[in-house]
Amino acid sequence: MPSSHPSVVASAAKAAQAAAPALGAFPLTRRSALLRDLARTLGDHDVRLASVAEDETRLGAERLKGEIHRTRVQLEMFADVVEDGGFLDAVIDHADPSALPAPRPDLRRMLVPLGPVAVFSASNFPFAFSVLGGDTASALAAGCPVVVKAHEGHPRLSDLTARLAADVLPEGVLTVIHGREAGRELVTDPAIRAVGFTGSTAGGRALFDLAASRPDPIPFYGELGSLNPVVVTPAACVARGAELARGFAASATLGQGQFCTKPGLLFLPEGHGLDEVLRGEFASRAPAPLLGEWIANSYRTTLTALAAHPAVRPLHNPPQPADPRHAAPALLTTTAEALRTSPELLEECFGPASLVVTYTTRNDVLETLRALPAGLTATVQGEEAEDEELFHALTAALYTGRLVWNGWPTGVAVTAAMHHGGPWPATTSPLHTSVGTRAITRWLRPIAYQNTPDAFLPPPLQDANPWNVPREVNPPGVPGSRQG
Amino acid sequence: MPSSHPSVVASAAKAAQAAAPALGAFPLTRRSALLRDLARTLGDHDVRLASVAEDETRLGAERLKGEIHRTRVQLEMFADVVEDGGFLDAVIDHADPSALPAPRPDLRRMLVPLGPVAVFSASNFPFAFSVLGGDTASALAAGCPVVVKAHEGHPRLSDLTARLAADVLPEGVLTVIHGREAGRELVTDPAIRAVGFTGSTAGGRALFDLAASRPDPIPFYGELGSLNPVVVTPAACVARGAELARGFAASATLGQGQFCTKPGLLFLPEGHGLDEVLRGEFASRAPAPLLGEWIANSYRTTLTALAAHPAVRPLHNPPQPADPRHAAPALLTTTAEALRTSPELLEECFGPASLVVTYTTRNDVLETLRALPAGLTATVQGEEAEDEELFHALTAALYTGRLVWNGWPTGVAVTAAMHHGGPWPATTSPLHTSVGTRAITRWLRPIAYQNTPDAFLPPPLQDANPWNVPREVNPPGVPGSRQG
Repeated sequence: MPSSHPSVVASAAKAAQAAAPALGAFPLTRRSALLRDLARTLGDHDVRLASVAEDETRLGAERLKGEIHRTRVQLEMFADVVEDGGFLDAVIDHADPSALPAPRPDLRRMLVPLGPVAVFSASNFPFAFSVLGGDTASALAAGCPVVVKAHEGHPRLSDLTARLAADVLPEGVLTVIHGREAGRELVTDPAIRAVGFTGSTAGGRALFDLAASRPDPIPFYGELGSLNPVVVTPAACVARGAELARGFAASATLGQGQFCTKPGLLFLPEGHGLDEVLRGEFASRAPAPLLGEWIANSYRTTLTALAAHPAVRPLHNPPQPADPRHAAPALLTTTAEALRTSPELLEECFGPASLVVTYTTRNDVLETLRALPAGLTATVQGEEAEDEELFHALTAALYTGRLVWNGWPTGVAVTAAMHHGGPWPATTSPLHTSVGTRAITRWLRPIAYQNTPDAFLPPPLQDANPWNVPREVNPPGVPGSRQG
Repeated sequence: MPSSHPSVVASAAKAAQAAAPALGAFPLTRRSALLRDLARTLGDHDVRLASVAEDETRLGAERLKGEIHRTRVQLEMFADVVEDGGFLDAVIDHADPSALPAPRPDLRRMLVPLGPVAVFSASNFPFAFSVLGGDTASALAAGCPVVVKAHEGHPRLSDLTARLAADVLPEGVLTVIHGREAGRELVTDPAIRAVGFTGSTAGGRALFDLAASRPDPIPFYGELGSLNPVVVTPAACVARGAELARGFAASATLGQGQFCTKPGLLFLPEGHGLDEVLRGEFASRAPAPLLGEWIANSYRTTLTALAAHPAVRPLHNPPQPADPRHAAPALLTTTAEALRTSPELLEECFGPASLVVTYTTRNDVLETLRALPAGLTATVQGEEAEDEELFHALTAALYTGRLVWNGWPTGVAVTAAMHHGGPWPATTSPLHTSVGTRAITRWLRPIAYQNTPDAFLPPPLQDANPWNVPREVNPPGVPGSRQG
């Protein structure tokens, strides 16, 4: 797929800009209907979409079917969120003529769309984080038109999805462009008001830097890399070590390890005695294709470098298959002390490989966890009756967006309480999530109306509340003074 | 005041980092008590504080007394916000073992402090946006220790305020440093997790760039410049032109025009006939001191450049006073077309000067408003019975954080519905406000707990809700699928 010409990028951004006022002014019911129509379209064409996706990504029919389902659920979830209207965060403070030291005006605040959004889609979720994925769904729900930079790994699927969406959406509301250079032009296009990105730390950082260096810097929400450490307490290792080894292997190799929540580090107490079980689990999984040869190349390079490190020894590191797109799962091991003192071991290996890290004392593991970069998830496998105090010590040392107890980090529930984010380098914006209903907050900005006639106000702020949105009226906080 | 030595900056940041876990773990009642103690301390020492402030800023006793009151109210407002607990945005999604295509875990999400915050205080609010001002109050309310870079305009007041605060706060929770170079070191210190800034666009941009270029970029909330246009409709001009001219002059010269909400542009219909009233209003206001000689210098330079522009003529532009710290109010005029085509006329003139912009047709004013940079406020003076349609056209053309109807932009109420922010160049972060209760969101990040035993959870997420915070339980949004 050739890179989109600069004039195509500029036209897409301009069309999004032209479409923004009308989309932002739609009644909420109309905006939610668009999202439901998109969900229905995905369902109507799921066989054809899955077939093109399988051809490009090799993710397997079952997984792709499930992912289309998730993508529909996401669109419908945001339709619900739009209809509810709570995302507008409407707040009304009535005037207080007797406020001291000066009368207080009537103030009404709500959130409005930021404007056209650029979405960089992910290689590993051709539906759920691509053209009609979570970033697009949340941006449309917020009332922002979207220009998607398609991932190089599934360009035909991206174009097909965009064509199907075009039958549902007003002109300019969703456009797909192709190519890295086109992506860079998109981030610097004056019409674009925010960027969502899912991908590598290096790629995300380069685009973040572009967004921040614009004459008018814009928000950049990058969901980047994560090591997703799993810590097994000594008590859990004794109680159910073998079961945990099997669960870990299943999570680390799910989807060939091509998830941003893949557990890349397994902390086990020294003398854990699980080498054989772990080796067996990883060895039992046959080589399989990755998303593309470029991912397989990167997997092999990173794995080779890790395996060659003097502090690392293999538990299971078979020769990689002849087919350059395929990958064999691998498991290496090192010590907590080595991990703490060797930053080069902290590189994410995207694909079905993980590192077992043995720790000696409680201090040894805590000190090492504190040295890890922030991540999307961290998991503690412990015994409830014995590990409460240790849980608190471990979680104080872990810098993460989601803490999993006695579960696995893969499997990201799409709900209101989900947080899929974290401080740098997990993301470029520690305040926001890219999964779940709160993802909509990335594309909205507040506006306040002062002393405005009721009939002039947008419906969510009118006294009669004609759209019946949740509102806070005169919420907590001392009636303020005014000055300045 | 000499610039703080690099080792002093590093120590302050390290002390803030050391204080962060305990401050973040305080029960909400204890955190709110700290804020109330700080408010009380300001009240106990108000005479002494106002005296030092007057000596440094020359803002006048009455204004300074009012500002101390506002600063106390802000601290108390955030104490209320903390006690309420709604700012934690706690959300609980119960497990759903029957969810399709896979069981859904129990997920509980809340906001936690980002960590140590750097606050750059403002010249024009020695209390309300300085050591114990809104940025500090909201950061402490969020549970974040603060290192304040004092403004060069009131270093002694900053040190005095910090000493008084030290009697109330745990060690390391609030420190003051001095000097521009020290400020730059602070923004790049690894312990600092976010920055709040109030000041000029140039100064804010330089620090924003530093924050964005860190190895680990951090959020930077800069409240920068704003032209604060006021648009008078033809109907309002006929109905109450002279009254509006007087109101405008009062707002533009309030506090010697040293407010970020000072109306810098007054749009009047051609042939408005208000030159004499406006001239008289500005001429009646005597020269008075500004915050410092550096501000007066900048005022004179900017005013001279504007007045020398070929498209600008003076309405009232007297010689500036001999005292280099003093400034005489000034009013210039130009046309909407000239403003639209001369970007050099869009420079903010901080101080008691404004520009009257005459417009011909409706299109003339709309086109010019669309060409303005985004601002903190925009004001429409209109007639309710006649101007509804024009109000909608004007507000669609204005890119702003707060829309004022038939009022003036100065006088920023400190409430929940206030929005004091806006897209670049009004701020560096269009999503956030620096005034009002929502300012706390800048210093918080989400964390989600998955399947965690009730007793292990932080109190706001425990089933029994021992702190009795507002929570959403199973809020709108289709029960999500899981994958990835």
